[in-house]
Amino acid sequence: MTRTKLQDRMYEVIFKAETPVGKAFDVFLILLILFSLTVIVLESVDEYHVKYANLFHSIEWVITILFSFEYIARIYSSKGRKAYVFSFYGIIDLLAILPTFLSILFPGFHYLATVRGLRLLRVFRVFKMNRYLRESHFLMQAMYASRLKISLFLSSVITIVVIIGSLMYFIEGPVNENFSNIPQAMYWAIVTLTTVGYGDIVPITAIGKFFAGMLMILGYAIIAVPTGIVTAEMTSLSANMQLRRKCDACGLLGHDSDAAYCKQCGSPLS
Amino acid sequence: MTRTKLQDRMYEVIFKAETPVGKAFDVFLILLILFSLTVIVLESVDEYHVKYANLFHSIEWVITILFSFEYIARIYSSKGRKAYVFSFYGIIDLLAILPTFLSILFPGFHYLATVRGLRLLRVFRVFKMNRYLRESHFLMQAMYASRLKISLFLSSVITIVVIIGSLMYFIEGPVNENFSNIPQAMYWAIVTLTTVGYGDIVPITAIGKFFAGMLMILGYAIIAVPTGIVTAEMTSLSANMQLRRKCDACGLLGHDSDAAYCKQCGSPLS
Amino acid sequence: MTRTKLQDRMYEVIFKAETPVGKAFDVFLILLILFSLTVIVLESVDEYHVKYANLFHSIEWVITILFSFEYIARIYSSKGRKAYVFSFYGIIDLLAILPTFLSILFPGFHYLATVRGLRLLRVFRVFKMNRYLRESHFLMQAMYASRLKISLFLSSVITIVVIIGSLMYFIEGPVNENFSNIPQAMYWAIVTLTTVGYGDIVPITAIGKFFAGMLMILGYAIIAVPTGIVTAEMTSLSANMQLRRKCDACGLLGHDSDAAYCKQCGSPLS
Amino acid sequence: MTRTKLQDRMYEVIFKAETPVGKAFDVFLILLILFSLTVIVLESVDEYHVKYANLFHSIEWVITILFSFEYIARIYSSKGRKAYVFSFYGIIDLLAILPTFLSILFPGFHYLATVRGLRLLRVFRVFKMNRYLRESHFLMQAMYASRLKISLFLSSVITIVVIIGSLMYFIEGPVNENFSNIPQAMYWAIVTLTTVGYGDIVPITAIGKFFAGMLMILGYAIIAVPTGIVTAEMTSLSANMQLRRKCDACGLLGHDSDAAYCKQCGSPLS
Repeated sequence: MTRTKLQDRMYEVIFKAETPVGKAFDVFLILLILFSLTVIVLESVDEYHVKYANLFHSIEWVITILFSFEYIARIYSSKGRKAYVFSFYGIIDLLAILPTFLSILFPGFHYLATVRGLRLLRVFRVFKMNRYLRESHFLMQAMYASRLKISLFLSSVITIVVIIGSLMYFIEGPVNENFSNIPQAMYWAIVTLTTVGYGDIVPITAIGKFFAGMLMILGYAIIAVPTGIVTAEMTSLSANMQLRRKCDACGLLGHDSDAAYCKQCGSPLS
Repeated sequence: MTRTKLQDRMYEVIFKAETPVGKAFDVFLILLILFSLTVIVLESVDEYHVKYANLFHSIEWVITILFSFEYIARIYSSKGRKAYVFSFYGIIDLLAILPTFLSILFPGFHYLATVRGLRLLRVFRVFKMNRYLRESHFLMQAMYASRLKISLFLSSVITIVVIIGSLMYFIEGPVNENFSNIPQAMYWAIVTLTTVGYGDIVPITAIGKFFAGMLMILGYAIIAVPTGIVTAEMTSLSANMQLRRKCDACGLLGHDSDAAYCKQCGSPLS
Repeated sequence: MTRTKLQDRMYEVIFKAETPVGKAFDVFLILLILFSLTVIVLESVDEYHVKYANLFHSIEWVITILFSFEYIARIYSSKGRKAYVFSFYGIIDLLAILPTFLSILFPGFHYLATVRGLRLLRVFRVFKMNRYLRESHFLMQAMYASRLKISLFLSSVITIVVIIGSLMYFIEGPVNENFSNIPQAMYWAIVTLTTVGYGDIVPITAIGKFFAGMLMILGYAIIAVPTGIVTAEMTSLSANMQLRRKCDACGLLGHDSDAAYCKQCGSPLS
Repeated sequence: MTRTKLQDRMYEVIFKAETPVGKAFDVFLILLILFSLTVIVLESVDEYHVKYANLFHSIEWVITILFSFEYIARIYSSKGRKAYVFSFYGIIDLLAILPTFLSILFPGFHYLATVRGLRLLRVFRVFKMNRYLRESHFLMQAMYASRLKISLFLSSVITIVVIIGSLMYFIEGPVNENFSNIPQAMYWAIVTLTTVGYGDIVPITAIGKFFAGMLMILGYAIIAVPTGIVTAEMTSLSANMQLRRKCDACGLLGHDSDAAYCKQCGSPLS
């Protein structure tokens, strides 16, 4: 199937932000998303809901229909339809319109349309596109490079939570109705280990408080682990990026990240 | 317009801290600011307010008038008037006197005069000026260099808060009056994600607790990101500063940050 | 004592995950552990306990008996019996079955069988064994290398907790029944220092709140210490690992951690 | 004044831990300190106090008298009396006995004797003295090197607390009695900024919650700063220490921290 000129033109406007029209399209989309989020958030406040129910309802549907047309246009003009539909952004685009349609069947569902906030991730590229992308790519790379270490860390946290949860259920359960089952005690363990500490569930026995104290100090100490993982990764990535910074003129590698000119031949660095 | 001798003299005293008079002026200013903050803070305590209302009121006005004269003197003697008035410090200097004057129209406004605490930032330079400035410059540089990464991080945090907030409103809202609207649920999400955990708003359904637990572990893990960003930046900046430390005598670069003498020619390092 | 062929075969299957049967054994074990944890957690919920008490009871015993046979098989086939029984994993394997047997004498004890969650640590090796092991080895090494610094840090935390606890007991004790003894005040100090902050025990006097504020800022500042320790260790370890990455073909050292080919001779790196 | 043989002998035993008697003295001191802390902590628990008041009282006085003799012996045998008395450890030694004597005049004062926990800092040197000292020296050095950055950071935190405190007093004060004066609002700001979050003082107005949310995200972000400071310092210190590791045999510098033999001449490294 050959692509029509219309498809190419739409692709430029919708998927890219290099042409003035493409940029305008993205800016309009950002404003529409932010406006739509504001409407959904305000609609949930009883006070406003009572006064402006119809207005909110109409805006919600107008925006959803606009997003639906955009979604269809994206499918129509994309270079690989299947790839787009099942890509991360394709799924977000669908999830951004689905809740409003589902709210016909299940009232209240449209509040979940705030998931369209994730669409901002894509359209943020209009602002200083290259630098933002490079930075966000850097963050992603650092996270990706540490995925094994992070998943090991999370498995350990969950194992600790299960074991401490059942221990506290064993200790506190008989006298403290807030520890009346293990899932509840596990919830308490997460609240404590992450140092959130709501205080709705607290140990009351001396031995329970002793173990809680141990868990807190443990939580305090192991927060160092994910931080250490990500930091070490970022430090080494940023050192690597510096080593690989290359002068286009003479080809010298290893410029400082804040250098504006090549230290060998003096040509400006990109 | 040529500058008068008075202007130059005043500039030396008010803006600089190198002459004995200039230093004395800055020390007096620091004490006045601290005294003024103490008065405002104490005035808000009912017990003292009842007893010393008149005294507090008089002190407040005397200090504000002194600061107003100082502000006028700064404008008069500054080398670039417009630049000063609209500079960061110029605005702080104005904000430091405004609330007291506004309190004539709007009683209670003068409590906001604590914003004059920010003036301390400027006058801190009298203590070991150079080293403090260098260190604070270093911190600023590290923050500035990571501004894009930090704003990306904050946008993600806000997006997470909006989406989780509406999800929890959807789940907890019908049975828990503390989640009665999305802004409230977003407030809860911030309180939880940042691990503050007041406990005034807590999930009560099993599914709500499950998602809350996920959010806590997420918050625990992503605290690593800003830390990693700032640390990596500081590490690389401090390595760069070390590489660039230069001996004034022989010109050798790359001295350790704690070296007192040049490792090549033995001359003292600045 | 010479080892029989059966012992060697069992060793392959039970202790290793290189053969298909060995891998299948480990996968089955993981599923059994997860299933068993789920049963124990659900059993503690009154609602389910009432309905399915017998079912839970039977499953619990079947799994425990399976684990007991496995434990005996491990002892029988292991290459060094005593070494296995007293190894970290050997003790975990025993602790995984003990609580159920003890629950005959002490009802409720079997909830502690969640300790079998720790067995997952061993069998996780079936998933991409080498990489996981390397990463987890890396984390362990970083923790081990900083053990002295970490224990110094923990001793300081405990000393701070004892001293602040008795100070607050002295200050708050007479007027605040939540600070009625030093252990209670120490518990409060841990809850505050680690920034958990339940809010079930809070200072009520002005002087108590002042010291509490100091303790919080102290806690906020010293969280930096364990993080700094682990991060510095990880950074230096990861730099060392990179320096030691060696090309099998030409023997060149010092390849980047993300390099796939030797930068000198071009052969693929392991 | 020439030193007697007794003084030299006592100095060896009391101040040093190299001879067997000196080591035994230090171990005995550690046990006595720990025992004394346990007694003070238990004495504060009503239940035990009622039963064993006399026993606790006697133990407390016996230990205090032992510590007093030790303090006199330290003064007598020290090489520089004045220097010892006014040193950090000399003051701790005095503070360790003072509260018990003061409790004759002011009952309850002896609970503050837990300050003797700080004496453990000194006697910890008996365990693997050199390594511990080196590590603790390393931690101290990293903290000392970042003292200017840390004090700048703390000044900023306190300035933020004063300004946010008065802002919240202005916003919440009129409707929320928990924000009835600025010191109280500053206490709330510290509790929130450090992510402790007791929940005894919480904003109730929409605008107050909005600013509280901002403060939380700010607190979440600026925790990165002290961590970054300490980590960067530790990383650079640990890199420096590695660079300076020297072979005693051939004098080569720059051995890895985990190297056991000189990479040039093969002699064992200290």
